[in-house]
Formats: sequence, C-alpha cells, structure tokens
Amino acid sequence: MYRSHNCGELRASHIGKEITLAGWVQKIRNKGFMIWVDLRDRYGVTQLIFDEERTPAAMMKEAAELGREFVIQVKGKVIERESKNPQMPTGDVEILVSEFTLLNPSLTPPFTIENETDGGEELRMKYRYLDIRRNPVKESLLFRHKVGMEVRNYLSAEGFVEVETPYLIKSTPEGARDFVVPSRMNEGQFYALPQSPQTFKQLLMVGGMDKYFQIVKCFRDEDLRADRQPEFTQIDCEMAFVEQEDILNTFEGLTRHLLKQIKGVDLEDFPRMTYDDAMQKYGNDKPDIRFGMEFAELTTQVKDKGFNVFDQQELIVGIAVPGAASYTRKEIDKLIDWVKRPQIGANGLVWAKYNEDGTVKSSVDKFYSAEDLLGWAQTTGAKPGDLILVMAGDTQKTRTQLSALRMYLATELGLRDPNIFAPLWVVDFPLLEWDEETERYHAMHHPFTSPKPEDIKLLATEPGKVRANAYDLVLNGNEIGGGSIRIHDKATQAMMFDYLGFTQEEAKEQFGFLMNAFEYGAPPHGGIAFGFDRLVAILGGQETIRDYIAFPKNNNGRDVMIDAPAKLDEAQLKELHLQVKIEKPVKQ
Amino acid sequence: MYRSHNCGELRASHIGKEITLAGWVQKIRNKGFMIWVDLRDRYGVTQLIFDEERTPAAMMKEAAELGREFVIQVKGKVIERESKNPQMPTGDVEILVSEFTLLNPSLTPPFTIENETDGGEELRMKYRYLDIRRNPVKESLLFRHKVGMEVRNYLSAEGFVEVETPYLIKSTPEGARDFVVPSRMNEGQFYALPQSPQTFKQLLMVGGMDKYFQIVKCFRDEDLRADRQPEFTQIDCEMAFVEQEDILNTFEGLTRHLLKQIKGVDLEDFPRMTYDDAMQKYGNDKPDIRFGMEFAELTTQVKDKGFNVFDQQELIVGIAVPGAASYTRKEIDKLIDWVKRPQIGANGLVWAKYNEDGTVKSSVDKFYSAEDLLGWAQTTGAKPGDLILVMAGDTQKTRTQLSALRMYLATELGLRDPNIFAPLWVVDFPLLEWDEETERYHAMHHPFTSPKPEDIKLLATEPGKVRANAYDLVLNGNEIGGGSIRIHDKATQAMMFDYLGFTQEEAKEQFGFLMNAFEYGAPPHGGIAFGFDRLVAILGGQETIRDYIAFPKNNNGRDVMIDAPAKLDEAQLKELHLQVKIEKPVKQ
Repeated sequence: MYRSHNCGELRASHIGKEITLAGWVQKIRNKGFMIWVDLRDRYGVTQLIFDEERTPAAMMKEAAELGREFVIQVKGKVIERESKNPQMPTGDVEILVSEFTLLNPSLTPPFTIENETDGGEELRMKYRYLDIRRNPVKESLLFRHKVGMEVRNYLSAEGFVEVETPYLIKSTPEGARDFVVPSRMNEGQFYALPQSPQTFKQLLMVGGMDKYFQIVKCFRDEDLRADRQPEFTQIDCEMAFVEQEDILNTFEGLTRHLLKQIKGVDLEDFPRMTYDDAMQKYGNDKPDIRFGMEFAELTTQVKDKGFNVFDQQELIVGIAVPGAASYTRKEIDKLIDWVKRPQIGANGLVWAKYNEDGTVKSSVDKFYSAEDLLGWAQTTGAKPGDLILVMAGDTQKTRTQLSALRMYLATELGLRDPNIFAPLWVVDFPLLEWDEETERYHAMHHPFTSPKPEDIKLLATEPGKVRANAYDLVLNGNEIGGGSIRIHDKATQAMMFDYLGFTQEEAKEQFGFLMNAFEYGAPPHGGIAFGFDRLVAILGGQETIRDYIAFPKNNNGRDVMIDAPAKLDEAQLKELHLQVKIEKPVKQ
Repeated sequence: MYRSHNCGELRASHIGKEITLAGWVQKIRNKGFMIWVDLRDRYGVTQLIFDEERTPAAMMKEAAELGREFVIQVKGKVIERESKNPQMPTGDVEILVSEFTLLNPSLTPPFTIENETDGGEELRMKYRYLDIRRNPVKESLLFRHKVGMEVRNYLSAEGFVEVETPYLIKSTPEGARDFVVPSRMNEGQFYALPQSPQTFKQLLMVGGMDKYFQIVKCFRDEDLRADRQPEFTQIDCEMAFVEQEDILNTFEGLTRHLLKQIKGVDLEDFPRMTYDDAMQKYGNDKPDIRFGMEFAELTTQVKDKGFNVFDQQELIVGIAVPGAASYTRKEIDKLIDWVKRPQIGANGLVWAKYNEDGTVKSSVDKFYSAEDLLGWAQTTGAKPGDLILVMAGDTQKTRTQLSALRMYLATELGLRDPNIFAPLWVVDFPLLEWDEETERYHAMHHPFTSPKPEDIKLLATEPGKVRANAYDLVLNGNEIGGGSIRIHDKATQAMMFDYLGFTQEEAKEQFGFLMNAFEYGAPPHGGIAFGFDRLVAILGGQETIRDYIAFPKNNNGRDVMIDAPAKLDEAQLKELHLQVKIEKPVKQ
C-alpha cells in the first residue's frame, strides 16, 4: 500500500494518527529550521512539516532538495496545525513526517501547475499530462464523468439500452467528409468512421430494440474551426413507436434531470418555438432566450420618410438594448465598426437613443421626427434609457447580422449569465435547404428525416417550404441536441433520395440495406443526438469544449502531444495496397 | 401516443381496461370465425383476438391478411383468456381488438424469427436487424447493457473516473497491426486507431487522475480467427500509487460484484497461481479449474522400462480422466485420432485403464507391469474407474497438446458447467518471450510492463527467466482480463525498449511523449483491461461472442449487412493524397 489516506481527507478528527500519503509536491516553503511542503493528489492538498527539532538532519536535507512536481511518499503523524487555513478542507492539520521516500523526481514543468497558469494553449496541449494536473482541467474531466453517469443512469432507468454500434462502417457521400480506413484484407477497399450511428440506430429500431442510446465517438473530416474537433462525442438516442411529442417529452426529462442533479436547478416546462419564429424574433435557429432584445420589424413604419437607405431594403429590423442610451458616440462607433467587420459584413447600423428624460436622438434625425422615433421605441419595446439599433438589407443576411450583434451586446452587458439555464425547443425545421454552390436542395437535418405529412404535397412545387418533423434543443444559445422523426417506409425514403439528387443506383449502393430493412416491418421511429462535449461545457458554465476533452487536437487536427498524424513506413503502405501521392502545387 | 402499454406488461389486473398496443405480428392462427394474433415487442408477447361475433367484417378481413412481422397498432379491451397460458407472463389475458392500423407490412423474412431459427450464420448477419428481433440475440444485447451499467456503477462508486481517450492516434510498430486513417489536412500522414488506450491511460496517471476506467472500442488489424473481431470492446482501467496486490483486490471486487449482481453468485476469495505452476499443472496459462484432471509428470517413473518412445522424451505427463475406464477401444481410438489431428499435432497417446475392480490394462502392457501402472495411478491421482492418458515429447508442445485434450474431454464429460464460475489469478508471467521468427525477445504483455525488481539482474544473462509484475484474470478457462504494474521511470523504460530491439531513435519517435512524461513526476501505477465482449459472453453462459455484438463482422472483416468495406471514388482518394496500388500475384 502506497498510502493509507489520500491528500484530501485528513481532518482534525485524525489528529494523533500515523498515516501514509503519496502525491506531488505542489509548493515548498523553506525557512531553514522548518520546511513546509504542500502535497497534492487528485483529492486535495495536505501540508507536510519537517522541522530541525523533530526531523533527522538527513531527512531535512532531502526535504530541502525537493522540487515542484516531485512524487513522494511520506509516513508521519497527523498533528494540529498552528495557523489553521480555513480555505483548505485539510487546513486544520499537518503531517509531521517521520519517513520519506522519493518515488520520482521531476524536471521543472514548462508551465506552472496552478489554477491560473502561465502556459499558452499550444504548450499546454503538448504537455497535456501536466495540464490535467491543474484543478480546472482535472475538475472538468471529473465533471464530464459525472454528467455521463447521470445520462446513463437516467436513460437506463427509462428503459433505454446502450448498444454499441460499429466504428468500421461504410463511406457515404452525403453530409460532411468521412475519415476512412483502408482494409488490408479487402484489397483496395475502405471502411469509414461513423459521422454518427444514424443508420445503425434506425436498424436497431427495425430490430425491435425499442429504446436505444449510446454515448459514442463520432468523426468528421472537416476543416476545423475554433472549438471543433475531428472526433467528438455524442449522446445518441432513438425510440420506436413514437411521435415528435414523445421524443420532446422524454429528452426534456433527461435535460431536466441533468440540470437538477448536476446544477441543482429546477427547470420549468421547456418553451417551444417554430423555426420560422426563431428566425423572425432572434435571427437565429438557436436563440439565447436568457435575455430579451427580441427583433422588431420596422420595415413598413420606416419607409417613405426620405431615408433612401431604408427605402430600398427588403427587411428593416431593430432591437432595444437595455440601458444603453448612455453609450457615448465613441461606444456607438465601436458597435458600427464591429458590424462592419468582414466576419459580420453589415453596411452599417442606424441608432436611436431613447433617453431617460423621454427625449430621443438618432443617427437619422434628418429623416425621422421624434414622433417617428418614439414609434420605433414602441415597436422594439424600448424603455427610456434604452438604445435602439436598426439594421437593414436582405432578410436572411440582416437577421444573421443583427443576431450576431445581439449576442455580442448581451455578452458586453453581462446578460449571458452562465448560472442561468434557459432551454428551448425549436421545432418545424425546413426539410430542405438550397445550396448555392451545388445549385440543389440538401437535407437540412439528414436524408432520413420525415417531412410533415401535410407538407408533402409542397415537395413538387415549393420544396423550400416543406417542414420536417425535426427539432433542436437549444440551451443558452447553443444547440445541444437535434433530431427528427424518421422516414420508415421504403417509398418515401426512395422519394427523398430522388429529391436529394441521388440516382436510384447510388441510393441503392449507399443505403440499400436501410431501404431493404424498411421492407421487413419497420416501426415508426425517431430520435435525437446531443453533442456531449458541448453539453458538458455549457453545464460546466464554460464557452469552450477543449478543457472537457482529455486529449484534444489542435486546429490542424493534430495531437501535438503524441505528434499525430505521422508518416507510415513503406511496408505498412504496401500491405494496405496504397501509395501516397501528393500533388505538387502548380507553379504560376 | 402509439401505445398505452407494451406487449409484456398486461396482467389479469388490467382486465376491462381499454388499451393500445403496437408491435410485430409473431404468429397468426386463423380458424375462420376467430383469429388469434401474437403481438410482439421488446418486452413480450400479447395475444390479440378477432372474432366474427364481435369484430366488424372488414376488420376480420384485414386481420386475416396479416403476415408475419407486419407492424400493427391495435386498440381494444383487455379480457380474460379462456385457455390461460402459464408459460407467458401475459398469458392470463388477451385483447379484443376494436381498432386496428397497419403501420407497415413486411415481406416474408428470410429466416424464422423464433428462438431457434433456420437461418445460417451468414444470412443472419446480412439481415442482422431481423436477427436482433429473435429473443436470444435481443436478450444478449440487453444483458450486455446490464453488465456495462454494473461495471460503470461499481467503478464509479470506487472513485474511478471514466475518461475518453482519443481514437485518432499514432501508429506504433510494436504489437499487432494497426488500422490507419489517412489525414487529408496533413498530407501523406496517417492516424492510427488504438489497439488499446495503453499510453493514454498511463499519461492520465502521470496527470494525476489516480483512478481511470473506460469502456472503449479497440482495433486490431489481424487475420481473423473464428470469434475474433477487428473492433472489440475493452474495460480499460488504471490506478496510481498501487502495487500488484491493490490491483488484484480492486478487480477481484469488480468481478465479485458482477457475479453477485448479474448471476446471484457469491464467489470465494479468488485463488492465485503462478504462470509456471499453471503451465505445469494445466499446460495452459488460462486453466479451467472448474474440474480436476491436473497434470501429473511421470517422466522419471516411466523411463528405462524398455519403452523406447518414452525413453527419448523430455517430458512424459498424464491425466486421470474420471470414470472413463469404461471407454471402449473404439472410444479410445477416437481420442488418439483426435490428438493426432494437425490442429493438435501429437504423435500418439498412451492409455491405462484403472478398472473398477482394481485391475489395470494399458496400451503399453508389454513394457509396464501392473505395479508400474498402479504407480501411474498414484501419481496422476486416478481412482478405480478412471482412465489414465499419457503424452510425451518436448515440454512446451506436450503440455499444450495435453491441455487441449483435457479441455476436449471436459467438454465431452460435461464438466464445463456454464453455471459454475471458477475465477483464478495467474501471476508472475514472464516479462519476455522468445520469437522464433524474428529471433529476438518480445514483450509478453507489452513493453510498458515492469520487470520484478529482484529479477532485473537476470535481464543480461537469462532474459527468458525474468518475471514481470503481470497478471491475468481467468474465468472458466478464458482470460477475461490482463494487466501489469507499469514502468514509471524513463531509465527503465529506455532499457526495456533497448532489450526489445528498438533503436534509441525509434523509441523516441514512437514513445518519446511517454518517456518525456516520465520525467515530470510520474507516479507508480498499474492497471488491467478486460475483454468486454468475452466477459459478457461468459457471464451469459455462452462460448461465442457474436451474439453479444449488435453488428459483428464476418471472418473476412466484412460487415455483410452494409457491405463494408467498399471502394472509394477517385475524388475522395485524391483529397486524401492516396492511390490504390494492388500488386498482381506473380505467375509461376
């Protein structure tokens, strides 16, 4: 036994006991005649004491030579601490060391192992095993485990079965790019890693599993944006004999359970909003409803007042920013610059202050009277002291831009309180979305999503208007889950593939097994998948997922700690029937 | 709501209630004036009744047209069944159907969806979604889920944290072949899929996680033997600040918990046996100790009696087969043929019957007196009525052959009772094993296993005799888990790589990150991994793992249901900087 106790559990009640601890040297204070060492493990920190009166000289010398992150084992007696530290759970006691073993020394770490570290992102990833020793990262991983256990316990109690679906599957052209795995035994052929277990969970429904879930790794070979990982974890769920209502209720139950167990928060019934309403009110299909600033359309009321810029636009839409009438000209200019940045791409921003004294002042006073502007205030719901911001342009673009501004302002104004949890179901998503590049419709969710029966007739005439039985669960402005009721008959599925531009042969080659399965008694079914990394981060009150992933990859998809990916040797390539062929860039 | 109840829950107490069920048509009996339908879902079977007195004619007609595996929804009243079926949990009641919806028809399934099916292995895998509807497969998957939950709950309560380690890692030449994943973003480079999270769990120990576990998929690109899968699941565990004794106790606890919770079996303290003893007593490092037939070495006592065959051999070893003295000559010849098969490769088998009446009779009566043979009986522990079987040859080969025979006979004699659970720790495995092909020593467990400190001095002189702090957990003749105390200092690890034939450069390139980590305060640590597929199968009382895997691959590593692996199109290959190059076999 390396230890009788861990470094987090000794209390005043242990005083007088002989104990053994093992852990890392967190800190050393050497006053010559006395040396204090903070010993750390996963469970906490305990203070050790060596003093020249009670400690043999040789051991004093050894203790003096300890460095940060050395691993030691000590035996000693728990004694009362002279100056107690109420900040530390073990702060009432210290250990008078009687035996001492150096288990492993340590080089000086490349960054400090403290809550706030001096290590940059890349350095911390390279030495991730040291970064994990830091409390915030360690706590994030413990938290992730706890959330995972709660998910499993809840779903299992609800009759869901965790079924492991395969990782070596088949590449499909639909959706994002697959990671592929060359087969040695099947020459010239490749497996693909799953982007999600979508078809397998549907087959489990055909197989009568009734309620399936899995916490499972998924893979997408996409160009990585910040906070995207090539491998990510999903809580994947599917139910048979259900309608949308059943799914929403079941997973509202799961989310409520998590919030209660993990955060001690009781949630009301989750509000629901159609996709169309979400776009109109928030310019966004995952609105953060922790705060207001709902969109107000001003299109009719601002036109024909001589302000040309507005007269030409499809949509004019504004928000009331609470308490921001006091913004200086400089502050407002900063907002204007912000929306004009290429990432947002707006042409400008019209503002109107509704001052505390009831007067109004705007950037377009030349065209609009005080009465006009008070009308804007009424429409946007602005109160005295608020700032009205107005954007204009094409409907979709303008909504997206104003949504970005709304979120930016909410952050600036401290309205995105991580301790408030505001869930929302967004429902009635469009079935299809137009892709400018390929000039055809794509499935907005995926090609297995069922259209609303009453909208099927629109497929031929106005495909963009067909709504799907698809839904997202949004939490604090993040999509944490999304799903749909699936197609469960071969004819509808074949029709969908046809609309999505698959030839019959392609559909058969890629998804023949699923359509075959539909001919052998497929039950109605539907499901949902939660992004587990994101869910955990949001529950943890964080914006980024990286600290919740033990060994994340960087933005180039590299693991900088193990230095992967890497070259293979020729023999390995030959066995896989492969040759690397890098095209040289064409010289101009 | 598609249903008010499931097909397994209605009882006499529900009589009179109006209910809604949905499920699959398991069976139809049509007597013209009356039609009974067995409706099935995951939870059970409920009998529906249509009769011409109470059912509208149109519905009678629809019911008559139902086929096996059609999916239907019915509403009706729970009524008392005339002829109750005590074999069925719902056998007291039936449903008098008042409304009826065909949700999806079914083609005739390619095999019967019954407990005993007429479908062959390949057909069942092709239509796995139908195979899963069969009770034995469905129950196996539910059982697997239950075992997984118990593992997680136990380990979590013991302070273990489930940490997800990455799937896209780096290829290493040690061990089995890796599956690799070409990187699009990092031209000409490849990730590898993990054969196990070995190095990552060690890094988590360096990172202070203290107690780690994960139920995780692992991948090995090996030529598949029966009952091997290219992807398999492992319960992967690691602990810091532990000695071998701590690991054995902890995972004995887990195994005892599983047997108790899952099978209601209370296990005694697990016996322990050294590798050397296991080889000597059972010819096998994973002995099945549910029954006796221990090996008895006869080498000295059978030599110099004029039987040349024995005189020349290194090892002569026998077993006493209980109650088999009554075997006929023909039965014994069958055993001789069995050991001579190429899979076993023995030259022959010497037998001696120790008859019930105390007389002896053997195949070598010419050379051995009755007294000699009674001596054999004493050494092998044979009692009157037993058959003594003796094999001779090179030590290792002979032990392996006799072990195979021992297992074969145990199966024949019904001694391998799947309801008896006999666990065993095998300890003190050799650190290295000699590989004839490459003519060098390989790590028997893996290169991170620590040698026993007292044996390190033998490394230079007798490497084959160095014992490792390595252990296997054996259950009923199957290795269900294996692990070791790891090396945790850079110098020892570098020495091991050196012994294993790595150049310093190779060691650094492949495992530099681990050896680096060892320089920053690595704690002593060790762990174990359980083969989850096998564990679940054994707990379920089965020999093969396939029914416990939702979507298994065949012996060529193919998923015959989705038809993977498959070819990629040229554009996809080009993006991955790859060209397929299949070498034509050389004509002779």
